[in-house]
Amino acid sequence: VLDLHGDPIALTAALVDIPSESRDEGRIADEIEAALREQAAGFEIVRNADAVLARTNLRRPSRVLLAGHIDTVPAADNLPSRLADGQLHGCGTSDMKSGDAVFLHLAATVADPRHDITLVMYDCEEIEAAANGLGRIERELPDWLQADVAILGEPSGGYIEAGCQGTLRVVVSAAGTRAHSARSWLGDNAIHKLGDVLARLKAYQARSVDIDGCTYREGLSAVRIDGGVAGNVIPDAASVTVNFRFAPDRSVDEALKHVLELFDGLDVDVQLTDSAAGALPGLTAPAAAALVEAAG
Amino acid sequence: VLDLHGDPIALTAALVDIPSESRDEGRIADEIEAALREQAAGFEIVRNADAVLARTNLRRPSRVLLAGHIDTVPAADNLPSRLADGQLHGCGTSDMKSGDAVFLHLAATVADPRHDITLVMYDCEEIEAAANGLGRIERELPDWLQADVAILGEPSGGYIEAGCQGTLRVVVSAAGTRAHSARSWLGDNAIHKLGDVLARLKAYQARSVDIDGCTYREGLSAVRIDGGVAGNVIPDAASVTVNFRFAPDRSVDEALKHVLELFDGLDVDVQLTDSAAGALPGLTAPAAAALVEAAG
Repeated sequence: VLDLHGDPIALTAALVDIPSESRDEGRIADEIEAALREQAAGFEIVRNADAVLARTNLRRPSRVLLAGHIDTVPAADNLPSRLADGQLHGCGTSDMKSGDAVFLHLAATVADPRHDITLVMYDCEEIEAAANGLGRIERELPDWLQADVAILGEPSGGYIEAGCQGTLRVVVSAAGTRAHSARSWLGDNAIHKLGDVLARLKAYQARSVDIDGCTYREGLSAVRIDGGVAGNVIPDAASVTVNFRFAPDRSVDEALKHVLELFDGLDVDVQLTDSAAGALPGLTAPAAAALVEAAG
Repeated sequence: VLDLHGDPIALTAALVDIPSESRDEGRIADEIEAALREQAAGFEIVRNADAVLARTNLRRPSRVLLAGHIDTVPAADNLPSRLADGQLHGCGTSDMKSGDAVFLHLAATVADPRHDITLVMYDCEEIEAAANGLGRIERELPDWLQADVAILGEPSGGYIEAGCQGTLRVVVSAAGTRAHSARSWLGDNAIHKLGDVLARLKAYQARSVDIDGCTYREGLSAVRIDGGVAGNVIPDAASVTVNFRFAPDRSVDEALKHVLELFDGLDVDVQLTDSAAGALPGLTAPAAAALVEAAG
């Protein structure tokens, strides 16, 4: 059984030692749920798929939400955890079971919190946005996400990183006509058409924008390129996948419009395949201001 | 047993009905060898791997070489052969078992040829040049390729196509530095660097050159493009494979130099992966001139 009252570093190690690659968080969610039910007095507890939600209902004037994902990227010969020279190593230690451990420890040990507390331990953060447990909770249990300030336990070296950028991916596809490469003039080379797409990406000047004193630096990058039929065939299809990381003053729709405008006039088709909205920093909210002041 | 004396169309069908994808020509080579040994009187016959060679030694003043590959591309639900509306269908019918059938039929039926005849039925033409049976014969049995004129049975719609273009492939690789796409400025995007490569390919003006009255039209084409690590990673490697089809007035070395010059100054590495020299048409040779006159 996980010991939520003890040393948070030992708790981190115990969480790391429960493998929990995305889509395989059942066991760690079971352990977290059982520990909270036994050790977090006064919390309302709900299980949602492989997410575990817990909250106080103390009628405090404000509510702080503490959220952490419990999944990890695939392990790479880095389990179980290992403590060396005062540093804990192992898949998920930094991202973000150490954060989860602190939040679980707080839930079990802070007897009389100044704010009501909502704890969200969620699944499937490390994979495509559509699978993200936080999105599912937003759809199925939206009232559980009401709060004055939310703290995500992602690794940031002890600094507050306020808000977050949005992300979207588009596949930019060019079409052509196959031909034998010995008679290339009979074909229409789809790969050659991607040259203009790459030229615009290379020339693109990404924006930096200041919001509430936070600087957001955008980025537009090709992350995959594919094309080709055989070594002697003019290819009739080729595509490049582009990832846009955008500041939270743009909505997903606005960000997509910006990307579409960038490729306007080229002989290509642009399809949105994945997106997640950004979040404004919200540092002017009173509870957030108190957090900033406390963190120094 | 293959009947070399009968109808060449029936012989074509019989050859098509022996599957012979490249590297799997053992059975068809066995059948061809057995048929020649039994039915082609007066021919010296040699087996070389899965190629079958046969020649007369009649001390004629000139020698004509008849060559055909016996392998095919992979079948695609198009075996066995099928005769419909007077047309034969099936994998390899056109390229080039019909040519093979005509050559085998000639070997068995022309009793008193004007030229000595060398028959070369060879393997592995449809795959990379290094595996080509004709190259192996050139290395191992070069005297078997001595002739005044050589006729290859490739499909040309009944016209003489003299000589052939050379071909080479290079892989043009760009290197960069990985980074998370949320911090793209920390990376160096290898895919973006291919934009200049594609721009030069797109702008390239291929040469047409006249040799012995034959026009050779060159072509320089991207045939494959690859790159990418994951949807949120700035890629550190990307490459495009380029196929150059060049007129036989350039050697392979000269053609490679031409390609290297085209990409000169770009931040890429260019590696030759495959090449085959072209062949000059040689239509001024007396035996070739007689062929052109006979074909009309």
